[in-house]
Amino acid sequence: MNVQINPNGAKPAAVTTGPVAGSRKVYTSPEGRPDIAVPFREIDLHPSANEPPFRIYDTSGPYTDPSARIDLEAGAPPVRGEWIARRGFATVAPRAIKPEDNGFVAPDKLVAHCPAPHTVRAGADGQPVTQIEFARRGIITEEMIYVAHRENLGRTRMLAAAEETLADGESFGAAMPAFVTPEFVRAEIAAGRAIIPANINHPELEPVIIGRNFLVKINANIGNSAVTSSAAEEVEKMVWAIRWGGDTVMDLSTGRNIHNIRSWILRNAPIPIGTVPIYQALEKVGGDPDKLDWEVFKDTLIEQAEQGVDYFTIHAGVRLAYVPLTAKRVTGIVSRGGSIMARWCLAHHRESFLYERFDEICDIMRKYDVSFSLGDGLRPGSGADANDRAQFAELETLGELTRVAWDKGCQVMIEGPGHVPMHKIKINMDKQLRECGEAPFYTLGPLTTDIAPGYDHITSGIGAAMIGWFGTAMLCYVTPKEHLGLPNRDDVKTGVITYKIAAHAADLAKGHPSAKLRDDAISRARFEFRWEDQFNLGLDPDTARQFHDETLPKEAHKVAHFCSMCGPKFCSMKITQDIRADALRMEGMERMSETFKAKGSALYLPEAADAKGDAD
Amino acid sequence: MNVQINPNGAKPAAVTTGPVAGSRKVYTSPEGRPDIAVPFREIDLHPSANEPPFRIYDTSGPYTDPSARIDLEAGAPPVRGEWIARRGFATVAPRAIKPEDNGFVAPDKLVAHCPAPHTVRAGADGQPVTQIEFARRGIITEEMIYVAHRENLGRTRMLAAAEETLADGESFGAAMPAFVTPEFVRAEIAAGRAIIPANINHPELEPVIIGRNFLVKINANIGNSAVTSSAAEEVEKMVWAIRWGGDTVMDLSTGRNIHNIRSWILRNAPIPIGTVPIYQALEKVGGDPDKLDWEVFKDTLIEQAEQGVDYFTIHAGVRLAYVPLTAKRVTGIVSRGGSIMARWCLAHHRESFLYERFDEICDIMRKYDVSFSLGDGLRPGSGADANDRAQFAELETLGELTRVAWDKGCQVMIEGPGHVPMHKIKINMDKQLRECGEAPFYTLGPLTTDIAPGYDHITSGIGAAMIGWFGTAMLCYVTPKEHLGLPNRDDVKTGVITYKIAAHAADLAKGHPSAKLRDDAISRARFEFRWEDQFNLGLDPDTARQFHDETLPKEAHKVAHFCSMCGPKFCSMKITQDIRADALRMEGMERMSETFKAKGSALYLPEAADAKGDAD
Repeated sequence: MNVQINPNGAKPAAVTTGPVAGSRKVYTSPEGRPDIAVPFREIDLHPSANEPPFRIYDTSGPYTDPSARIDLEAGAPPVRGEWIARRGFATVAPRAIKPEDNGFVAPDKLVAHCPAPHTVRAGADGQPVTQIEFARRGIITEEMIYVAHRENLGRTRMLAAAEETLADGESFGAAMPAFVTPEFVRAEIAAGRAIIPANINHPELEPVIIGRNFLVKINANIGNSAVTSSAAEEVEKMVWAIRWGGDTVMDLSTGRNIHNIRSWILRNAPIPIGTVPIYQALEKVGGDPDKLDWEVFKDTLIEQAEQGVDYFTIHAGVRLAYVPLTAKRVTGIVSRGGSIMARWCLAHHRESFLYERFDEICDIMRKYDVSFSLGDGLRPGSGADANDRAQFAELETLGELTRVAWDKGCQVMIEGPGHVPMHKIKINMDKQLRECGEAPFYTLGPLTTDIAPGYDHITSGIGAAMIGWFGTAMLCYVTPKEHLGLPNRDDVKTGVITYKIAAHAADLAKGHPSAKLRDDAISRARFEFRWEDQFNLGLDPDTARQFHDETLPKEAHKVAHFCSMCGPKFCSMKITQDIRADALRMEGMERMSETFKAKGSALYLPEAADAKGDAD
Repeated sequence: MNVQINPNGAKPAAVTTGPVAGSRKVYTSPEGRPDIAVPFREIDLHPSANEPPFRIYDTSGPYTDPSARIDLEAGAPPVRGEWIARRGFATVAPRAIKPEDNGFVAPDKLVAHCPAPHTVRAGADGQPVTQIEFARRGIITEEMIYVAHRENLGRTRMLAAAEETLADGESFGAAMPAFVTPEFVRAEIAAGRAIIPANINHPELEPVIIGRNFLVKINANIGNSAVTSSAAEEVEKMVWAIRWGGDTVMDLSTGRNIHNIRSWILRNAPIPIGTVPIYQALEKVGGDPDKLDWEVFKDTLIEQAEQGVDYFTIHAGVRLAYVPLTAKRVTGIVSRGGSIMARWCLAHHRESFLYERFDEICDIMRKYDVSFSLGDGLRPGSGADANDRAQFAELETLGELTRVAWDKGCQVMIEGPGHVPMHKIKINMDKQLRECGEAPFYTLGPLTTDIAPGYDHITSGIGAAMIGWFGTAMLCYVTPKEHLGLPNRDDVKTGVITYKIAAHAADLAKGHPSAKLRDDAISRARFEFRWEDQFNLGLDPDTARQFHDETLPKEAHKVAHFCSMCGPKFCSMKITQDIRADALRMEGMERMSETFKAKGSALYLPEAADAKGDAD
């Protein structure tokens, strides 16, 4: 569908709607809470499978629901609207929009603000606002009920218990229950081991939990970089990223119209949105980090919190004393936020105002339940710099700040590297758990080698799978364009799918009770030559189908009992099926031999000359 | 260049020649052996780098050497010709070509045999023939000298020693010296820990060593599957795969013209060629595994050994008693060779003739120095079947057969899975080392999850990197088309690059002394904005350059001190360079602050409006 939303934009833009191939959107409710509807996708399998529809976790929001009316001007459905309304937060007059919020854009270039209705609320002192505050008081919020049901894939306790015996794994201390109860969620949040990033000003959010005793999540970055995109283009980037499995999206935009474009993103975002407020603060002072100060930063925090941003990356661990530790690095400081703060500290020869004002930052973020993503501004930019003193000194400070934020009632996760060869990955995870009291770890990759520009989704997917296995709760994706250019639509999809692979491989290795179900379903489909089921159960049905069709394009081949690898004459899977059928029927090995001989060779399937592939 | 070689082929075909972008072919000689010329590629760096040309391992053969005359009818240069001639092997009358060797192809469809001259030799009893026989007698062959120099990247002992201090890693018992001597190679081969697959009838081979105390190698598969390709097309598949880094190539062809197409591949192959002889044997008996017998298999071994195949996959571990162990698997037997032998065993209710005749197989393979690749016919075809009794029973038998082959004077490596979730990978490696006496492990992937058809280069690249780290000596690639169709040219390249990443990530993590040099070189180039160096030092300069140009196409941007991520206005790397320059100059932190203030903000580079990216 086409939705023209930006009268000043260069062109009208569409967001992608319609079901993912082969799956249906469904909503189910937790027991006793018919008012809570949790989205999933279900895949109907071939009748020969004799299996119920296969249900999978779904991040795609209303955009894949054919019955949903998508209207970017109206915004996404306010899933949390009533829950938030019942909590008695004060409605506040929103901070007035200032010219610098949109980068001093000329009036004729101004992108309109999203007209969707938006009530701004703020919590009061003494009132529980954040999920961790509710959790500590023993209160189970609707968000906790929602994520519990979501993590269970809507299974009942009985079904989950039956599947528990299927799971094996090495969890490195993670403790995932077969059935996630709302009480378990509450306890994990109270302990700081998990967060639900959920700003009280983001009612459109479908809550998601991030913690190492839950499914591993992934983040996709969007952003206009130096280019002014239209608002619809930015919304479409988000819609596209979550269609393929992005659990959260970070908006890293800079430049003009940043405030107004963000309004479109947030009002249409069913997933948590993260930002790096220092980027916008820097714009407000004309791009000169030396001119940054607490007032402009504080103002930006409030601006974005009121809009509904769910988590902020705050680089408060880049302390003055750590900056010289980076001087002899091969690649110095590669984090934008980190380099801004390093520059500020050196120029003023003062301790970072983010560090010094951290209490005040906590007070602001608590009022809206904006979660911390404590930024790793000194992360290594090359394998050579991995695990050095600068990186670990900052991580120790992030641990100190975690405890401050927890005391202030804030939810916290910790960002991690970066570029780390395989043998140094686990050290990162272990140190993070120790220093930061098991607060969720959120890593970028890490890239396990630096020699493959153009393929850094793969160099980092390897590291992401491993660190996810070791305990990282969320993996920030890397696209094939990393280090080289701006990702396009295909790059975003490739990045998301690669990270879904990494997250799922980690879930499997940890022994997550529900992870193996999907692998087994697809393996059964593969063995039984249910080609459509194999495509649809995969992460990217479109690409799988297209690849198959390149070699064997005919519809008939979708049910053929062979594939292009061996061709119709010979097929190892078919042989095994014969073996199995016979082996199970046999009582003794003696008779097996006779039977095979008696019925002649069944190895050859009827040859269909036209079925031969001709690719390659 | 166009080289038409197949008068009966459908079309003329070309093989890809010319240098890989940004690098020069060079040859250097080990000390004291000017008669041995070992190929490398060298990358000239930007003068500002003040670094010597960067040298890398090169698998691409004469095809990337502009001074080489490529003539497929004449074959590749006989690098080993004189070495072999000096060893006194008897010249034998080649086995006569039979109609079944080419699949009973009709005369008008017959692809011509490669006309390149080919002398067939065979070793005698009591005469050392194989590299392990020479090694055990304390004899250092030219192949050993060659691979030592190649593994050292042509460095001298002194250079290597200086770099030793740079390497850290966790090698899990592997012991890689900073400088590889021919004597070290000899000792590793004598111990069975490494092999140089090098048939005495393959003089065109540039020797390569496979063992866990050397650089991790990768294999790429080619093959015509059910389709009859022209010989030149098959040669081009090989040339293309080694251009991007394939260390060995397996020819998995079946069907018509198989013998004659193989002659073109071998006479033009600078890398070891592996095959699975049972595939051709099966063709000779009309595709019915029940009709296979020792005579046809033996005849096929001799046929291929005389042609010069360097290693044979032999599925001698699929024993009768193990077949029923697969009956309850989710995906049964997925190896083609494994299913052929399982079928044969069941149909005849007899022990595998490969197992029973293993002594005789060894005697044949020793005569030509064809290395064993003991096949894992019962490898798991899904994560659900990983590490089951069928798989491990076969592995135990492969250990038994390894010792037999060693006693017979043969070189041996062991094939491994397949589909294995991360937490079960190391168990495979440890058991293989234990059961098979540290013979080199050669694994397919493993795939760490089954849910991503279309992306199995990635699901398996994760597992390959890990098992390579743990000690696997060679990784068999998987392309994006795995499970779905036949790989095309792009798929082969993607598979090879993905596996080069996995192998290199493994080398880094193991602490291989030379691995880190390339990462550091590219990281320095990245930090100093030497864009061309960054592209050329990478695994795929063409793709890196293309990705960069999509966002910043102008030539001037190749030397610009910014990239498209942050744009020209703001650049974290530039900030760091400022920090470094100042920090190193400073004596005290006090003065640092003043200096920064005095000179004003240097954060902004001069803005070049036209330099803004506009992709996405």
